[in-house]
Order: sequence, then C-alpha cells, then structure tokens
Amino acid sequence: MKLIRIGEVGKEIPGLLEEGKRYDVSAFGEDYDETFFESNGLGRLQEWFSSNKNSCPVISPDVRLGPPFKRPSKLVCIGLNYVKHAEETGAAIPKEPVLFFKSTTSIVGPNDDLIIPKNSKKTDWEVELAFVIEKKASYVSEEDAMDYVAGYVLHNDYSEREFQLEREGQWVKGKSCDTFAPLGPYMATKEEIEDPHKLRLWLKLNGKMMQDSNTSDFVFNIPQIISNVSKYMTLLPGDVISTGTPFGVGLGLKPQVYLTPGDEIELGIDGLGSSKQTAKAYPE
Amino acid sequence: MKLIRIGEVGKEIPGLLEEGKRYDVSAFGEDYDETFFESNGLGRLQEWFSSNKNSCPVISPDVRLGPPFKRPSKLVCIGLNYVKHAEETGAAIPKEPVLFFKSTTSIVGPNDDLIIPKNSKKTDWEVELAFVIEKKASYVSEEDAMDYVAGYVLHNDYSEREFQLEREGQWVKGKSCDTFAPLGPYMATKEEIEDPHKLRLWLKLNGKMMQDSNTSDFVFNIPQIISNVSKYMTLLPGDVISTGTPFGVGLGLKPQVYLTPGDEIELGIDGLGSSKQTAKAYPE
Repeated sequence: MKLIRIGEVGKEIPGLLEEGKRYDVSAFGEDYDETFFESNGLGRLQEWFSSNKNSCPVISPDVRLGPPFKRPSKLVCIGLNYVKHAEETGAAIPKEPVLFFKSTTSIVGPNDDLIIPKNSKKTDWEVELAFVIEKKASYVSEEDAMDYVAGYVLHNDYSEREFQLEREGQWVKGKSCDTFAPLGPYMATKEEIEDPHKLRLWLKLNGKMMQDSNTSDFVFNIPQIISNVSKYMTLLPGDVISTGTPFGVGLGLKPQVYLTPGDEIELGIDGLGSSKQTAKAYPE
Repeated sequence: MKLIRIGEVGKEIPGLLEEGKRYDVSAFGEDYDETFFESNGLGRLQEWFSSNKNSCPVISPDVRLGPPFKRPSKLVCIGLNYVKHAEETGAAIPKEPVLFFKSTTSIVGPNDDLIIPKNSKKTDWEVELAFVIEKKASYVSEEDAMDYVAGYVLHNDYSEREFQLEREGQWVKGKSCDTFAPLGPYMATKEEIEDPHKLRLWLKLNGKMMQDSNTSDFVFNIPQIISNVSKYMTLLPGDVISTGTPFGVGLGLKPQVYLTPGDEIELGIDGLGSSKQTAKAYPE
C-alpha cells in the first residue's frame, strides 16, 4: 500500500494511492498515528480497503498532499551515513551511527514551500531515505530489526549549516526550522520495496542534478541502524528514522552553494516517488 | 496551581495538589496535553476547580505520581548553562545556548526507578529547573518571552556520559534512555514562582549533597533561552525546556563517580518540591 494524507495544513485526511488514483479512506475511521501503527493498522486497513475500495471517494490530484502520517513522537536522523558525504563535509567515517533529532514541527507535506529561516545564509538540501517504525523497539537485534519497519518515505533533510555547525551546538539547531522536513509523497509499506539497500536517490536544484547516489553506499544499513538506535532510546510506533544523505550537498561544493528564494528543489527515490519544494523568504 | 498526574504507568489521571492534598480532577474532562495548554486549560481548570473542589475525590499519598503532564512534542535541553558546570566538564562558557533534545520516551514519574541502561558504566545525574511552554512560540523576543511560560517543574536530566561523549555523537545518545527524565512531583503554574532566577536547587546521592546551587547562576536566563530556541524551531504548547544543570555532576568529580544499582538520588528546587529515584540494573 501507499499511504497518503490529503488536504489543507492541519486538516489532512488519510488516503491511499493506487495505480495513480488517490482514494479518501477517512471512512476507515483512523488517521495514521502511533495508535494506528501499533494496533496492526496497516493490516486492518488493507483488509478494509479490499472490501470498501469502491465506496471510497477519489480525490483530485490538485489537492495538497500533507505528510503521509501524523506527527510522530520523534524524527531521528543518522549523520554521515554515506562514505563520500562524510568526506565532503570533512568528517571521518563514523564507527557507529551518528544520531541527531529534528524537531517534529519541521515536518511538512512533500511539495510545500521551503521557508528559508530568518537570518539564514546557509540553508542546504539533503535527499534521504527515511523509514517508519511499526512497533515499540528497545534493544532490538539486527536479525529481528526488519520486523519493526512499517514502510519507507522520501525525506529532504533541510539543514542550516551555520545554525548546525557555527552556533555552539548541537546539530539539532540547524535541522529543526519549520518546513525543514518535507516527507512524502507517500509512505510505501515494507512489501512494496524489494530491497531498501538498492535504491537510487537523487536531488536536483533548479533542474541541475546535485545528488545522485544509491542506498547501496550506506555506511550502516537499516538493521544496523535500528539495532543501534534502540540501544539508546525506545522507538515508538510511527517514529521516523532518516538514514542520512549522500554526496552532493551545498556545504561540500567549492564554492559552497546555499538556497535562495525562488530556488526549486526536486528529489526522488526509486519506488518512493518524487517531491518538489520552492524556496521562499521568511515572510516579513 | 500545582498540576499532578496520579496512577499506574500509562493510566495516570489528572489531579491538583493543594495544601498537601491530592485532588482527582478527572471530572474536568481533560488531560494536561498540547490541546489543554493551547486552549487556556490552566485558566479554565482554575475556574472549574474553584466551583468543583468539594466534589473532587482526594487521592491517597501512597498512589504513584506520574509525570505532571502528558508526553510533550519535545523535551529540549540547554547544555552548559552554569559557569561552574561548564568548567567541571572542561567546556568553554557558551556564547549562545547549547541545545539538545532528549527523547520524550525518557520521561517518567518523579519517584520512579532509574533503570541503568544495558552496558552503561557512566550513568550520571543532573538536577535541573525545567519549564513548560503554554502557547506556540516562534521568533519570540526576550521582552515577550515570559508570556509563553505555563509553569515550572523539577527535572533530573540523567545522562550516560560514554553514550553522550564517546560514541560518535550527538549528545542525544546519552540523554534518551528510558527513565532518564523524571519530571515532577508537580508542575507549578507561573504565578506560584515569584522569581525563577532565584531558586536554590540541590541533589543528594545516598544522602550526600552533590549539587547545591542557585538558578541565579544561569549563563542564559529563561527569556534569553526562549528567544534563542524559538529562532531555531517552533515550540508547541506543552513542550518542555530544561535549563541545564549546575556544578557537581559525577563526570566532574576526581575520580569520576557514576551510578550503580541501589543508589538513591534525591533532588529538589525551591517551590517545586523534591523527587527521589532508586537506581536499578536493567532487568535481564
């Protein structure tokens, strides 16, 4: 299944995307949140939809897409998880996953505008594969880890490099501004992605390819990430973990390139669709 | 008012503490969450309680206290916010607040056991003054900042120093284990605390005073913190910000001292009561 949420900001209704059609599944009676994921919502929704598809309204493709699930309890990110990206930032390859959080208030729909924060000079892009946790996870072994995955989603981990690196720390400062986490267009359930470690991912700035890599280049794969993160904290159903960005961010270019109002950022991953954001100045 | 929540883990009901008595206010019909704070829940509860106090059941002091509000969207912490604490960790005095997050799954009741994580050798204590946000805050000026405060709460920001400092980063790794954020006994609403910048705070380990300081020693005061954090992220009603710990943590001692099973940790702040945790090994 491909989960979507449709409608104005804060008023999104749950839907499913099937063969290019957007179905309104609000008659199922649940939104995609912690309770949904932890109560086998995916299994129950699939069964419900197979019996009720014909009575689900089809929604116009013109309606806004929101993030494909409700606000999670946390948005965990992995830093420096591609060898060439670590090199471009001047960092060493980490011996275990580097973890940081983004504020969940940074989450927006896949095609919502990127608002460049006030006093920002170094807003940067980061295409990433993110995944969603299906059940409570604490001290999970690598062998069992994939049982905890609900599905996958495209993420642009926008990052303000001055806030992240030059403001006394920690990285969370440069990762948490509003609109800094477009998620979607949809969350693909686990069975839709044959191998999450063989997915091409790419990002274009104003039509020019800036990032073009493959998740096969991960330093740490998804089972290693889940096992590692779950040693340090309990993951809840619906939590999102983003697996890091490959080579080709603005910070790594010579000279460095950062976003300015009017820039168009388009990104995608095999099997997870694409998204597009337009950079805007913070409204005065 | 002094807000409390009472009952078993995950089944807490809202209450008020008044003159040493715990009143069950579940008849008010709301728990202390984002919706409550953003809809003037404090004002409405106060009015309701003044008319309904006599019909509120009084709860035994033997019943467990939970955290005094529901899980917030985020638990933001300030690092190195007391001069002598920065010195003991070997860090410089920061020029602007250092920010990090704790996973909200670390939140527990004030007197719940501290579970030392698996493979932990360096679990440390940190008494802190935390405050709760009442309304959505983005780019707030220092002048307006106190209007955004709902109240104050005692916090022990438990920290695993090896996880925090020796595991490739970021600090969130050492701050987010289950039971690492006892909050309470109660949240005192803003008017209960005459001056949050003149509060003695202390922590004893097995009866011995380890931390004994005053919030007058803050590097950054509460208005500066709110103004700074709200430049980097939007704060939501019910969000918690913890203001950092003073001198006297285990990391700063020579030799360093870390917690072991059986240790008793007691802490308090003027006007916000005290809490006590017993350290336990992670159950095999």
